[in-house]
Amino acid sequence: MKSILAELLTIGDEILYGQIVDTNSQWMSIELDKIGVKVIRKTTVGDVESEILTAFAEAEKRADVILITGGLGPTSDDLTKPLLAKYFNCEMKMHAEALEELTAFFKSRGRELTDTNKQQALLPVCCTKITNAIGTAPGMWFERNGKVFMAMPGVPYEMKRIMSDHVIPRLKEKFEMPVIVHKIIRTVGIGESILSDKISDWEKALPPHIKLAYLPGIGEVKLRLTGTGKSEADLRSEIESLSEKILPLAGEYIFGYGEDPLEAAIGKALLEKKLTISVAESCTGGYLSHLITSVPGSSNYFLGSMVPYDYQIKMRQLGVRPEVLEQYGAVSEPTIIEMANIVRAKFNTDVGVATSGIAGPGGATPEKPVGLVWIAYSDKYHTVTRKLQLSTDRLLNIKAASIAVLNLIRLSLPK
Amino acid sequence: MKSILAELLTIGDEILYGQIVDTNSQWMSIELDKIGVKVIRKTTVGDVESEILTAFAEAEKRADVILITGGLGPTSDDLTKPLLAKYFNCEMKMHAEALEELTAFFKSRGRELTDTNKQQALLPVCCTKITNAIGTAPGMWFERNGKVFMAMPGVPYEMKRIMSDHVIPRLKEKFEMPVIVHKIIRTVGIGESILSDKISDWEKALPPHIKLAYLPGIGEVKLRLTGTGKSEADLRSEIESLSEKILPLAGEYIFGYGEDPLEAAIGKALLEKKLTISVAESCTGGYLSHLITSVPGSSNYFLGSMVPYDYQIKMRQLGVRPEVLEQYGAVSEPTIIEMANIVRAKFNTDVGVATSGIAGPGGATPEKPVGLVWIAYSDKYHTVTRKLQLSTDRLLNIKAASIAVLNLIRLSLPK
Repeated sequence: MKSILAELLTIGDEILYGQIVDTNSQWMSIELDKIGVKVIRKTTVGDVESEILTAFAEAEKRADVILITGGLGPTSDDLTKPLLAKYFNCEMKMHAEALEELTAFFKSRGRELTDTNKQQALLPVCCTKITNAIGTAPGMWFERNGKVFMAMPGVPYEMKRIMSDHVIPRLKEKFEMPVIVHKIIRTVGIGESILSDKISDWEKALPPHIKLAYLPGIGEVKLRLTGTGKSEADLRSEIESLSEKILPLAGEYIFGYGEDPLEAAIGKALLEKKLTISVAESCTGGYLSHLITSVPGSSNYFLGSMVPYDYQIKMRQLGVRPEVLEQYGAVSEPTIIEMANIVRAKFNTDVGVATSGIAGPGGATPEKPVGLVWIAYSDKYHTVTRKLQLSTDRLLNIKAASIAVLNLIRLSLPK
Repeated sequence: MKSILAELLTIGDEILYGQIVDTNSQWMSIELDKIGVKVIRKTTVGDVESEILTAFAEAEKRADVILITGGLGPTSDDLTKPLLAKYFNCEMKMHAEALEELTAFFKSRGRELTDTNKQQALLPVCCTKITNAIGTAPGMWFERNGKVFMAMPGVPYEMKRIMSDHVIPRLKEKFEMPVIVHKIIRTVGIGESILSDKISDWEKALPPHIKLAYLPGIGEVKLRLTGTGKSEADLRSEIESLSEKILPLAGEYIFGYGEDPLEAAIGKALLEKKLTISVAESCTGGYLSHLITSVPGSSNYFLGSMVPYDYQIKMRQLGVRPEVLEQYGAVSEPTIIEMANIVRAKFNTDVGVATSGIAGPGGATPEKPVGLVWIAYSDKYHTVTRKLQLSTDRLLNIKAASIAVLNLIRLSLPK
C-alpha cells in the first residue's frame, strides 16, 4: 500500500523570528503517525505573499496532504485565507453558516461582533468550511487532483480540536491507510537510559514490524510501541502480549497506558479506593494542586490545599510547630512530616501530601542548595518521605517535584 | 541595504515523527535576528538522501546563509556529511587537526577512540572545519557563489556553542547587515480584533520600514513592532515614539513591554508598592498561585494561598459563612467577596484575591453554566468583583480565569 505523505506548513513571522516555539507540528506529527500518514517535511514561512504561494506550490508537488496552521486571524498580517483563495483561483464570499456560528460564538461570550470579526466568516467559495467550535477562524478544507489542503488557526487548542474532530476523521475517510496500532506504556521515576538497559533484551527481540520509541518528559518516560500491518485485531493482540512481557522487567515504574497522565491515574486510584486527599505545598507553589485539579471530576477526591509560602503562614495557618521550624528549618524532614500530617488532619482527608524545598534561583544556603526538595505522603497507616536533589531551574524544579509527589502517592496508597 | 536571508534546515526523522520538539531553530532565529540576518524559512526533512539533496538545492536558491543541524552522528542513518560532500562535489579525507581534537576529546573523558568515532574526523575537503569544543562532530562551513552552508550537530548545547563562538562572528565578518530593532508591547483583557480596531488608524500610518504583528495568547495579545534600517539609535527612538502614540488609544490594556509575563509585572508592582498578597482559589485549583510563584523572588510578596475546593473546606478552613454559601451558592458574588476578604484577613496580607466557578465539564446547572467564573480583588480601600463567561474547556477556563485575576489585580492596586 502506498504511504500517504503529508507536509506541515506553518505560517507566521513570529515563528521565523523565534518569538514562539512551534509545538503544533510535533502534536500533529504524532496524530498523523497514529493513522498511518507519513510526515515528510515541515516548513515554516513568514507573512510574505510570495513565500507563502511558493510554499503552497512546493508542498503540492511533494505531498498528498498539506496541513497549514497560522495566518487566519482577522488582521492585516494574516494572509493565509486570501492567498489560498488566490492559489485555488476562487473568490471569497460571506459564508452564511460560518457567520451564524461566529455570531453565536460572540453572543455566548457576551461580546460584540465587530466588522473586523465578521471578516472571519468570509471564505473562499472553493473550500469546505470546517467548524471551529472554540474559536473565531473556521478551518478550510480544499481538494484538487486527489490532494488535500487544510488550513487551521495556529492557536494550539483550536488546532487540536479541529484536527481531532474533523481533519483526522476526514483523512481516514478519504485515503486508504495501512493499519497502524499504537500502545503507549507510561513510566515514572526512572531515567530513559536505565529503563533502556532494563528492557534491552526484550527490545532486541521485537519483530521488525513493531517499533519502539522512547518519549522522555519531566520525571517520566513514555514507551510507544507501533505495529504496522493488515489486521488490526492481530496487531493488537501481538502488541498486548509484548507489553505484558515488560512487566517483570520494569513493571514497578509503569503507572498506566495510553494518554492519561499520572494525575489522572492517581485520581482513578483514589476514586476506586474511595479516598480523599489534601495538599500542603510550599516550593511547588500551587502547581501540584493544579495538576490534581486539572483532571475532570477531581472534586470527588481532592478536598483542598494550602500553599503556606511564608514562614508565618506555615505556623499560624497550617499549624507547623514553631520549635520544629526553628530547629530544622522549613526545608527538612521533620517539617515536611508535620506538613503532610497536619494538612490531612486539618482538611479531614484520608491522604495528605506536602512539599518544601528551594526552587531557586534564590534562597539557597551551603547546606540547602537550589533544587533540594523534601516531599511527604501521609495516611492513617504510615508517613513516607523522600529527599530530592533536582536542577537549578525554577520551573523545572516546581514541575519535577510535583510529579515526584504524584509518584509517591502512587507507591504509597494502601493496597 | 539588501537583507541577508537565512534558511534553517533541520535533518532527522525524530523531528518529523514528533519524537522531539525542535527548540534549536527558535534559539537560532533569535540569535540571527540580533545581528540582522532575516530567517525566511525553516525546513525539516527526514533521514532520506533525496529529500536532503532537494532541500539543499531549494535552500541555496532562496537564501544567502543555510544553517543545517542534525545528521552528523557516526552511525549509518546520519547522512548530512556525505551528502554535503556529494552536493559540493568533493571527496572526504581524514582531517589531521580534527582527528587531533577528537583524540584529545576522548582522552580528556577517559574514553577509548573507536574506529566508528574516528569517522567523525573524516571531512569533505571543500569545507572549513569548525571546532566543536564540547562534542565529537566538528562543524563544517562551505562557501559557493557568495553563499554559506554551515552544518552543525543537532545536540542543543553543542549547536549553541558553535553558533556563538564561530558562526555568528564569521557571518558578521562576511556580510554587511542591516540594523533590526524590535519592541514588544504586552496587552491583556482585550481581544485581538477589538484591539486592532482601536489602533487601526495608528497602524495604517506606520512607515513601511516598521512592521506590526499581533501575537495572541490566552487572555493577552502581544504587539510586536519591527523596524529595519541603518541606525540603531534612530530606529529605537522612532519605535519608542510610535509606541507612545498607542497609549491614548489602548494604554489601559498595556501591562508592560518585552518578555516579562503578566505575573512578573504584577510582582514588580507589588514589590514597588511594598504590598503582600494572598489567594483563595477554588475553580482555578492552584494554577493562579502557580503563576504568581513561578516568578523568582515571589516569596517577597506572596505569603500563601488556600484552595478550598470542597464546600466544607470553604466553610471550615477558609471561613466563608454557611448562610452565604447556602443562600447564594459557591459560585456567586456574595461568596467571592467573602473569599477575597477572608483570605486577606486570615493570611494578614494587603491584598486578597479569589476565584470560584464552574471549570467544567461537570458541575453546571441551568443558572450556572460551564465557564461561569466569579473573581474578586480585595484591599483595605475596596473590593472589586468580575463575572466571567469563559469556554467549555476545563484547562482553558482555569488558565483564562487566572489571567483575568492577574489583570484585575493590575487594575485594582492602589495608585
